[in-house]
Amino acid sequence: MRPYETDPTAIYAQSFAIVRSEARLDRFPATMRPVMTRLIHACGMVEVADRLAFSPQAAEIGHAALQAGAPVLCDCEMVGAGIIRRHLPSGNEVIVTLNDPNVPQLAQQIENTRSAAAVELWRDKLEGAVVAIGNAPTALFHLLELLDQGWPKPAVILGFPVGFVGAAESKAELAREPRGCDFITLRGRRGGSAIASAAVNALAAGLPEDV
Amino acid sequence: MRPYETDPTAIYAQSFAIVRSEARLDRFPATMRPVMTRLIHACGMVEVADRLAFSPQAAEIGHAALQAGAPVLCDCEMVGAGIIRRHLPSGNEVIVTLNDPNVPQLAQQIENTRSAAAVELWRDKLEGAVVAIGNAPTALFHLLELLDQGWPKPAVILGFPVGFVGAAESKAELAREPRGCDFITLRGRRGGSAIASAAVNALAAGLPEDV
Repeated sequence: MRPYETDPTAIYAQSFAIVRSEARLDRFPATMRPVMTRLIHACGMVEVADRLAFSPQAAEIGHAALQAGAPVLCDCEMVGAGIIRRHLPSGNEVIVTLNDPNVPQLAQQIENTRSAAAVELWRDKLEGAVVAIGNAPTALFHLLELLDQGWPKPAVILGFPVGFVGAAESKAELAREPRGCDFITLRGRRGGSAIASAAVNALAAGLPEDV
Repeated sequence: MRPYETDPTAIYAQSFAIVRSEARLDRFPATMRPVMTRLIHACGMVEVADRLAFSPQAAEIGHAALQAGAPVLCDCEMVGAGIIRRHLPSGNEVIVTLNDPNVPQLAQQIENTRSAAAVELWRDKLEGAVVAIGNAPTALFHLLELLDQGWPKPAVILGFPVGFVGAAESKAELAREPRGCDFITLRGRRGGSAIASAAVNALAAGLPEDV
């Protein structure tokens, strides 16, 4: 077997250097570049840079929210598992309500998925929060519906549902009308919990120039 | 906002129908098609079908191993979090050793990453196990090194490390010489914990013709 790189610092440095050289991030605002680097690193696809949509202040607002102690609301356990706790600046709560025992009945009541029903349990935590959706289009759709009904607004919506039914549509709706929230999203079918977690980690770790 | 599909059964059915219609899975062995459907569903990219590599019996062997109670060894918490426990046929253990307190020191000793060191703790569980690697190339590389040293063989290696440094190379090495194990892998940079979890879930849920 050929030798391979075993030094974690070298692996990160080489990875980020490849991302920078292939993804042409200098076309984006300086504050978004470290976030994009980490998103691309999480999925191994430099071409996602071409499909990212975001509000101009999303990186700063999201970082400030975490600094101020905002909770992180996740649509599934995988997103929560990918958030590096030691990077969170204020011991921020990471909340996943999907497996709350009330969710199955709530899903029946609202005639929607369990992922959508889980969002109903975010109400008391939503004001100023960081929302990270990495799996279910219906969670993002339903969040937008609840914001239209006047629910409290999160600081930033990291919208990365994935798949063939509703993912592209829910993310397009977020980018079209973010309901007064800042947002980062990836147009199209691609997304996923690793990307959503990476977005949180990027906001949490701050925006060092050397990443 | 436009109406969207809220019925989970309809969402799954439409998703899998889109995968079947776009990915031309009939070119693959019948037992692999449901696995591929789930892998594609997990990442939202039908084109990954063109880069999958696998041993002919991987689906049957992996399914049988889980039926027989094999543990699932994961390289990171996200992979573990994505495994649907109710699908596991024998209350199978899901094991993640990455955050074991001995791992940092072990990594220094073996001069490799923490992900590689975590694999060293799998020895007693490895014989006949299902290995699911969804993050770290060094975990897959080091597993292959340990197999070359005569360590017990897992039943199947689900090799999906992701990224720019070592991911493509480690998966190519697995496909080139799987050390007597069955395997499923995705050539190139793409991969990730959602795909690794989906592979376990596909093996666990069996191989229904209608998926």
